[in-house]
Amino acid sequence: MGLVIPLEDSKRRASASLEPLLDLVAADMQRVNELILSKAGSNVSMIPEVANHLISSGGKRLRPMLTLAAARMFNYRGEGHIKLAASVEFLHTATLLHDDVVDESEMRRGKLAARMLWGNQASVLVGDYLLGQAFRMMVEVGSIEALDVLSTAAAVIAEGEVMQLSVAKNMSTTEDEYLAVIRAKTAALFSAASEVGPIIAGGDRAMRAAFRSYGTNLGLAFQLIDDALDYGGSQADLGKKVGDDFREGKITLPVVLAYRRGSDQERDFWRRVLEKAEIGDGDLEKAIGLIRSHRAIEDTVERARHYGSVARDALAPFPDSPHRNALIEVVDFCIERAH
Amino acid sequence: MGLVIPLEDSKRRASASLEPLLDLVAADMQRVNELILSKAGSNVSMIPEVANHLISSGGKRLRPMLTLAAARMFNYRGEGHIKLAASVEFLHTATLLHDDVVDESEMRRGKLAARMLWGNQASVLVGDYLLGQAFRMMVEVGSIEALDVLSTAAAVIAEGEVMQLSVAKNMSTTEDEYLAVIRAKTAALFSAASEVGPIIAGGDRAMRAAFRSYGTNLGLAFQLIDDALDYGGSQADLGKKVGDDFREGKITLPVVLAYRRGSDQERDFWRRVLEKAEIGDGDLEKAIGLIRSHRAIEDTVERARHYGSVARDALAPFPDSPHRNALIEVVDFCIERAH
Repeated sequence: MGLVIPLEDSKRRASASLEPLLDLVAADMQRVNELILSKAGSNVSMIPEVANHLISSGGKRLRPMLTLAAARMFNYRGEGHIKLAASVEFLHTATLLHDDVVDESEMRRGKLAARMLWGNQASVLVGDYLLGQAFRMMVEVGSIEALDVLSTAAAVIAEGEVMQLSVAKNMSTTEDEYLAVIRAKTAALFSAASEVGPIIAGGDRAMRAAFRSYGTNLGLAFQLIDDALDYGGSQADLGKKVGDDFREGKITLPVVLAYRRGSDQERDFWRRVLEKAEIGDGDLEKAIGLIRSHRAIEDTVERARHYGSVARDALAPFPDSPHRNALIEVVDFCIERAH
Repeated sequence: MGLVIPLEDSKRRASASLEPLLDLVAADMQRVNELILSKAGSNVSMIPEVANHLISSGGKRLRPMLTLAAARMFNYRGEGHIKLAASVEFLHTATLLHDDVVDESEMRRGKLAARMLWGNQASVLVGDYLLGQAFRMMVEVGSIEALDVLSTAAAVIAEGEVMQLSVAKNMSTTEDEYLAVIRAKTAALFSAASEVGPIIAGGDRAMRAAFRSYGTNLGLAFQLIDDALDYGGSQADLGKKVGDDFREGKITLPVVLAYRRGSDQERDFWRRVLEKAEIGDGDLEKAIGLIRSHRAIEDTVERARHYGSVARDALAPFPDSPHRNALIEVVDFCIERAH
């Protein structure tokens, strides 16, 4: 194994940022945001209330930006990318609403989860409404290929959530099993959001494959860094507090690695807190200590770097352009969140 | 991206070796070899001739050793592991015979390929015979679960070979598409060979999952290092010469990376030599030069390291034992081949 010196990286270039991407898609994103607000509307007043609670809670809207930038990179001149981008954000929002019900989460992006304010039933049904609206917008765009990619992603995401149920209380989950979950749960939507760009722009098979690969691997890197941050990131990130995953009994890669590398006694601890959910004072600190002692955060970040490298190489063949470079910088941005 | 200093590794410990594994399974392997020779026999004299040409050509028999070590690690006391190990080697041998026909290869392990001596038809049919014998031995063992895992692997391998046909002449193949090929073509058998160990030893779900993950990731690392060696390894390795993949127009990760990172002019070169198979004097040297200039070998090895790390963590939970440690050392051995 090589010795990794992450500092070398910051010497090589200034820290990566989302700004170039934000700037490039700003005008389009303004329209996406308007569409999102309008399509979350309904005469049933609870629907916009619940939807807007989450929609206006300050997510980065990274996924729809991928769609916009990918379409524009191939000089797409139509209107379809706005609707597809809004659909992508709706698919994501619907997933979050349903997730919080399934996970019994109390907080989301630093605010009370919708289910704490309007209840589980409303969260489930408004999620379904957003899914329906997402499909209506996709259909309006009229690209069967884009519909195919996004509807497949919607099914795969649901499959991933179900997979996660079986992983949730099982400490013997392997890294591969965990990866299969996040590949479905997170990476599938990043992948579809990216691939529909070249699709509506009339891109060829190679362009589609490159963006599918970019999105998948960016999504994996993004989720792994998220997992790492939950056991040691700054509180500011995404409104999550350190230890949210721990308190919810989620089994993520830092835990998988620490468990597998731990002693029998340590494994007893992990089974007690995560399988049996018997969490007491000081257990989060103990968990973080074990994760640190087994270098599980560093190695989770290292795994994320691997996927980030694959995502970068996916876009390598395209000519130097502001959109391509901004999309590549997103990879660096996602990984540098961990520093 | 971190800076990787592989030298740190060799300082940390002496170079890894297959010896501990070879020593542990020596007695069992002796019986596997006898079984292989006996089951490759037939009254149709061409069958043992063709089969033994390849069987006696000095492969490392790594895959059956994984089966033996995995079964013994869980204190398996029966006889089934011998037959399963021989089946695994037969599946592998059958694949090689068929591969050489499909790829029109002239050499295999430093000798003329069987098809050069007995023809394509004999190579295909003797491959089929070995597949049949492999299944007969599996059935004799009587474990439906082991049969399920190995027969699934056999189907997946064939699927991978077909996938490779479509990848073969397509320079726009992404890294993910290439990985899907080697996951099927190589990693599936490593995975099955490893998983049937705990299966016949009565291991639980977690043990099976760990060995499946170990085998898969070891297989991926093994194949990626093989790919890297083909563009810069020593001639001695596996009887392959540098550039075999190049001459056969095989698209492997070093080429995928060099192509994606290259200029338009460089991509014209790759398409000419690999898609159109117009290879002239100096083209191999030029290919190696391009691969070096884009650090494609280093990064292929880096990708292999990633999978190697996952394989190691798959076996991390098991108590310290000679078998576990030897299996982990196999990972290091496979990766260090690239140094």
